[in-house]
Amino acid sequence: MSPETPMPNASLNSPAAISPATETAYLHGEIPLTRAMGMEVAAWDGRTVTLTAPLAPNQNHSDTAFGGAISSLGIMAGYCLVHLLLEERRISNRLLIQKSSIDYLRPVDADMTATACLPEEAVLAEFLDLLLRKRRARLALHTQVLCRRMLAATHTGLYVAMLY
Amino acid sequence: MSPETPMPNASLNSPAAISPATETAYLHGEIPLTRAMGMEVAAWDGRTVTLTAPLAPNQNHSDTAFGGAISSLGIMAGYCLVHLLLEERRISNRLLIQKSSIDYLRPVDADMTATACLPEEAVLAEFLDLLLRKRRARLALHTQVLCRRMLAATHTGLYVAMLY
Repeated sequence: MSPETPMPNASLNSPAAISPATETAYLHGEIPLTRAMGMEVAAWDGRTVTLTAPLAPNQNHSDTAFGGAISSLGIMAGYCLVHLLLEERRISNRLLIQKSSIDYLRPVDADMTATACLPEEAVLAEFLDLLLRKRRARLALHTQVLCRRMLAATHTGLYVAMLY
Repeated sequence: MSPETPMPNASLNSPAAISPATETAYLHGEIPLTRAMGMEVAAWDGRTVTLTAPLAPNQNHSDTAFGGAISSLGIMAGYCLVHLLLEERRISNRLLIQKSSIDYLRPVDADMTATACLPEEAVLAEFLDLLLRKRRARLALHTQVLCRRMLAATHTGLYVAMLY
């Protein structure tokens, strides 16, 4: 599928799977800070993406994770979700973040994970339809950051996708 | 002045000046990601703090600054403002961020600066008074991120200070 042949049920087309290792290599190659943070894409099943980051390179003065690192991991989980969604459907894209908001619920004192899930099918179909028709669409995505299996932060990002 | 001798007009006491270089060294020593980002405290006059970061280590796939790096710079400007305020008054403190929100207004395609100013005197006096009486107080701080002298992002952070 290409931008020239929009289909209303774009999200249902069988995508070409991208592995977590491939997406991690992309991040490390394109965004140096993800390398400095030791960020990795740990899992991606076509609906949910999970990123991980170790504590050591991301710690602060209190030996817990720096708020900016937690925020960066939350931002990247949403970014990767849209990126994987579009790349797997071979929709050439450029992605920006327009707004980011995070609530820190408890200190992160060990390695952390961030998980973002695609929204419900109707929202996703509208996003893809708008992107293919107008060449630009926005999507709000929520990310949960966990540490020791407990919720440590909730992030909401508003992402803008453009056909490229 | 120490936590043991609270004074209602704490913010008006003559502080022991901390230089931008000293604060930069503190950040680099305590928070490795600030070093990886090339973050520096460029100016501090007792009311306003300005941080800088070069584009290169903070860029993304579009050769503009990664949203997480801009967010981290915004978070750190507010953090440094409270840290300098309290340290100069010799109020031993532990600082956390509780909430962070950022609006990205335009792409950052060169070095960036983040500037945060102390709130009005009455708000500041209430914060210091509460901190010294209750050993814990919150302060909302706004940061402006500029690139090429144009506003590129606005950040709001809710910081929690605790006597330590």
